[in-house]
Amino acid sequence: MTCAKVRIWASCPQVPSKNHSTGPPNISTIDSSAAGIIRPPVAIPSLRILEDELIERIRRRIPSSEGGALRLGIGHDAALIHAQGWDWVVTCDQFLEGAHFLADKHPPQSVGYKALIRAASDVVAMAARPRFFLLSLALPAERTGAWLNQMLSGMARASKSLGLRLAGGDTARSAGDGARIALNVMVLGEARRGDGIGRAGARPDDGIYVTGILGRAQLGLELILREMSGQRSYRKLLAPHYYPTLSLDFALWLGRHYLPSAMMDISDGLSTDLRRLCRASGVGARIYADQLPLVAVPGSLQGIPELDPLTLALHGGEDYGLLFTAPMRRVSRIPNIFGRTRITRIGEIVRGSGVKIVAAGGKVSSLIPSGWDHFAKR
Amino acid sequence: MTCAKVRIWASCPQVPSKNHSTGPPNISTIDSSAAGIIRPPVAIPSLRILEDELIERIRRRIPSSEGGALRLGIGHDAALIHAQGWDWVVTCDQFLEGAHFLADKHPPQSVGYKALIRAASDVVAMAARPRFFLLSLALPAERTGAWLNQMLSGMARASKSLGLRLAGGDTARSAGDGARIALNVMVLGEARRGDGIGRAGARPDDGIYVTGILGRAQLGLELILREMSGQRSYRKLLAPHYYPTLSLDFALWLGRHYLPSAMMDISDGLSTDLRRLCRASGVGARIYADQLPLVAVPGSLQGIPELDPLTLALHGGEDYGLLFTAPMRRVSRIPNIFGRTRITRIGEIVRGSGVKIVAAGGKVSSLIPSGWDHFAKR
Repeated sequence: MTCAKVRIWASCPQVPSKNHSTGPPNISTIDSSAAGIIRPPVAIPSLRILEDELIERIRRRIPSSEGGALRLGIGHDAALIHAQGWDWVVTCDQFLEGAHFLADKHPPQSVGYKALIRAASDVVAMAARPRFFLLSLALPAERTGAWLNQMLSGMARASKSLGLRLAGGDTARSAGDGARIALNVMVLGEARRGDGIGRAGARPDDGIYVTGILGRAQLGLELILREMSGQRSYRKLLAPHYYPTLSLDFALWLGRHYLPSAMMDISDGLSTDLRRLCRASGVGARIYADQLPLVAVPGSLQGIPELDPLTLALHGGEDYGLLFTAPMRRVSRIPNIFGRTRITRIGEIVRGSGVKIVAAGGKVSSLIPSGWDHFAKR
Repeated sequence: MTCAKVRIWASCPQVPSKNHSTGPPNISTIDSSAAGIIRPPVAIPSLRILEDELIERIRRRIPSSEGGALRLGIGHDAALIHAQGWDWVVTCDQFLEGAHFLADKHPPQSVGYKALIRAASDVVAMAARPRFFLLSLALPAERTGAWLNQMLSGMARASKSLGLRLAGGDTARSAGDGARIALNVMVLGEARRGDGIGRAGARPDDGIYVTGILGRAQLGLELILREMSGQRSYRKLLAPHYYPTLSLDFALWLGRHYLPSAMMDISDGLSTDLRRLCRASGVGARIYADQLPLVAVPGSLQGIPELDPLTLALHGGEDYGLLFTAPMRRVSRIPNIFGRTRITRIGEIVRGSGVKIVAAGGKVSSLIPSGWDHFAKR
């Protein structure tokens, strides 16, 4: 199969320029022929622009075709490798100082926790159970004391919450001036043969679903970047950014019952990730603004454009909820709630390409993918 | 089981200080009670000194005990994970600019080739067949052009030579001033159930074996660091450093016939790696200087202390040969040559701890582990 957008290569948002402007409105009325074009949020040269080309170059040069034991390779949340009876699902994710976290803004516990959650999320999003992980650490010498201990305690919390066990890894000292922290996590998960779900199976008329509330992690991040994280009344709003949770049980249930036609996690924002799912499946999508499960923004924060609930929900990253599609004949089996996980139908798959959003008043617009990791934009 | 030295965590030599001196003679006559102490080759604060403690802290804090499906975890070349019928062997390895290669000294083809060979070697050394790999890349923007293409072509060469397929990965831009290249490779291999070999099984009276010639890669590196790599007569001496080869077929044959009691690769030098094997197995070793398969040093290079063949063979890194032990009753089945792989018996396992070396004249000395990656020492 061809993979227009290779998600397993594209899960790391890049560091945007500091001179980044907020850019054009996120919901625009560009005609549909242009709707398929990704507009990068930054104007400076950046890997983000090169990403598709870069990944294509890697794919062309290194043997990577699917087939045989490699059932799903590049282009899904994780790779699916067939073993007798069970399938192994493997993924890797970098968590880099300066690119994915800021050592002066993010508590080390959160860094360790999120590094593991972020990687495990790609396994969960294929309806697999994370079992083992490998940890590669590159550290400056001055981070091998208290910072490391606290980072590890956050990682232990994540591993316990998911039943994940550490199987090994690799340590190195990061070298040179301005040496930075780099965490690389590889997660191995297992699925019963045939249960694993990729992102290429969505078909016209399938319903589109999300789990959880959209935009909560981004709201927390915006407060941190605005130096408002110390205010007691906002403190509980930070947890979704520092310690996101995964819907493991629900993902496994979906896989066991063969309900989704396609599934992935929302790590880079709904507008970006839904477009990826559509491209991988060769379809388009239509979603409804008034059906989105929006983050609740306190009254005291209203009026700030970046904190608009719809903007946060469409483009905010790191919620790590599930995005999935289900054929009409299975829609009645999708619950509204599963344990503590809220499930919301937000639209449907359509023929063609691109994602449209229907505003509350009925106006239809193209949804420009604008999800990315904002934490370093200022 | 306990793992005194956790090899899967310890495969990355650290960057030594530039003001590093060559240090004490590598074969000393320290009494055996002190022979168990690793003497770090550098005096500055370095992760190398902290490594055991650092890994122990990671193990204490994150669930990682062996058991159930995790047959071998931290402490072996790779982790061994049981699946029905087959076992999966997984490892990860960092290849960092400044720590493991120098972008101005090492051709990008060699960087890509070695990053993969280095990681795959840990799988091969457990008598498993490397099958798939994941590649995490963090790159400065200026390395996404020709450098990347050439690096990938070297990696493709290694993947083809081993029959390894790329299953996915992750890309990011490395951030900040002096941003560096970081490659992280995760390799998945498979072994028939029970065939995988760890490093903890060596017993007194077992024979000790190595494959290939010792010190060839280090000789190549020394020439590069001495700016002698351009000299035509030395050019063929560089290949073992740039493009080391793995003894995959021989490793699989050993595993299939249950011949080794313990096995690992020689990545950091015989003196360091044999000590690790002994510590993991709770035994000591005795090797014979005149039985070592020494690198041939051209006459024009003789007299330079660091280029002494015995020094190169004992302490030179990155040969990626196999180091294994075999019980007496199986010794007759170990060939002297297998295909193009030379196999040499160099000594035997003894009770106790520490590694002794017997000089040609019969003098017995403790072998101080002094293997590490010299390339950045000057």
